[in-house]
Amino acid sequence: MDRVAEVADLVTVALDRLLPRGEGPEARLTEAMRYAALGPGKRLRPFFAMEAARLFDLDEGWVLRAACALECIHAYSLVHDDLPAMDNDDVRRGRPTLHRAYDEATAILAGDALQTAAFDIILDEDTHDDPVVRCELGKRLAFASGALGMAGGQMIDLMGVRDDLGGVARMQRLKTGALFAYAFEIPLIMARASDSQRSALMNFAHDIGLAYQIVDDVLDAEGSAEEMGKAAGGKDAALGKTNFVTLLGVDAARQRVAHLADQARGHLDVFGHDAEILKASVDFVLKRRA
Amino acid sequence: MDRVAEVADLVTVALDRLLPRGEGPEARLTEAMRYAALGPGKRLRPFFAMEAARLFDLDEGWVLRAACALECIHAYSLVHDDLPAMDNDDVRRGRPTLHRAYDEATAILAGDALQTAAFDIILDEDTHDDPVVRCELGKRLAFASGALGMAGGQMIDLMGVRDDLGGVARMQRLKTGALFAYAFEIPLIMARASDSQRSALMNFAHDIGLAYQIVDDVLDAEGSAEEMGKAAGGKDAALGKTNFVTLLGVDAARQRVAHLADQARGHLDVFGHDAEILKASVDFVLKRRA
Repeated sequence: MDRVAEVADLVTVALDRLLPRGEGPEARLTEAMRYAALGPGKRLRPFFAMEAARLFDLDEGWVLRAACALECIHAYSLVHDDLPAMDNDDVRRGRPTLHRAYDEATAILAGDALQTAAFDIILDEDTHDDPVVRCELGKRLAFASGALGMAGGQMIDLMGVRDDLGGVARMQRLKTGALFAYAFEIPLIMARASDSQRSALMNFAHDIGLAYQIVDDVLDAEGSAEEMGKAAGGKDAALGKTNFVTLLGVDAARQRVAHLADQARGHLDVFGHDAEILKASVDFVLKRRA
Repeated sequence: MDRVAEVADLVTVALDRLLPRGEGPEARLTEAMRYAALGPGKRLRPFFAMEAARLFDLDEGWVLRAACALECIHAYSLVHDDLPAMDNDDVRRGRPTLHRAYDEATAILAGDALQTAAFDIILDEDTHDDPVVRCELGKRLAFASGALGMAGGQMIDLMGVRDDLGGVARMQRLKTGALFAYAFEIPLIMARASDSQRSALMNFAHDIGLAYQIVDDVLDAEGSAEEMGKAAGGKDAALGKTNFVTLLGVDAARQRVAHLADQARGHLDVFGHDAEILKASVDFVLKRRA
């Protein structure tokens, strides 16, 4: 989809400008941050933020900066999740993971500093002219990515404590759902949206985030290493981890994705014709990964 | 010194209230965060923030919250610096390091989530009633701890690239100096202090931070494991790392500490009698570690 590719380019160019550049030996660190953040990536979360922002006629430059902050958090989480002590992945998006391209210590530090960069970007005056909005953007980003959000979800994932669908769904809601939802919170906060607008986009985020994870589990079971750009072939099952596919089976999982996609589009009806690109993105986001 | 111990207790009680508590399996993560942040510690940075705040008659509750955010950043940096891929330390303040008490993955995540918690705390309405102040506190915390501050300094330290005193001093200014300085920025930002007040406290922070690091290097060369609560006995020298003592020798290093202590106290003359406790803290801070 052209619009997804267009936003991905905007994000890469903006991140290149926003990320720090070290002038002494610490340049190794800032180069590692760039390797992780500027490499290939679909930039789905920024796409959702930018596209949802069109529903409110917001300043694209402001939204883009906030979306870059969100992408820094996503990038840091991938760097740390790939570490040997975590998922121990050697390849990410067709390239060596950061700790393979550099070393473990640099990867830990680069992840740390990417998180810091996210808050630096989101709190900057250039991200919004109202400091109340900037503080709320920062607070919500902290909540979405912290111990009761993304980091908590990764902890649950590592522990493998999920015997049933409820447990798997809760893990997903924290680990990936919270940052998906934050993409929509950016325009909602900036636009001081109404409760009904907020509900519609939060419901959309919930359904699309959940569907995205189920597709990921289908790919884990069926996908090839080429498609995923990382190790695949039932890794969860091999590790004895439960996920949506091990619990539901592939067919039921696919049916659930289709149902969630319909439901997600339905939530956007309240925005009328303005939401057409967002609606059209649903199949694109889910199909390209299936 | 009673006041240092008093502030340490205030910080521990406040952090216990401020840190998140997980209710599902992610409780392992929030417990690990507490292990790292609530354990024994001198809380020197919070002490400096709280004591400098008295010069401006600021709300102690506000300053305490910001000081807790700073302590979360300090705690996260210790957790990650101790990791096997970094300094590989098994003991910290007389207890097993976090990755020894839990495991590496949990330690990485807990460090990550402690950083997030710092921004969550500093941006909260309860930390200051003016959102401009909250944004500036957050921005400056990001700068002090990010790639061009603390994280950059740790990168330089890991690379061991420091042939001369200038290189060692620059590494120290980033790695430990930036967070020391931030302790004083908290009251300076909250009080909208004058340029001369800012200069005085920033100069004090610089001198005391540098002296503190030199004392640390003296301890590394001479100290015992009991005094440090961690592995000691010339670890830097054994690793072939240069530091202030390997470059200056112990005697010249001690002289430099004494000179910096005098100079630090001198910077505070502008505040008159109000700065007596801060002045008295200089020897305490440096002596208890020598």
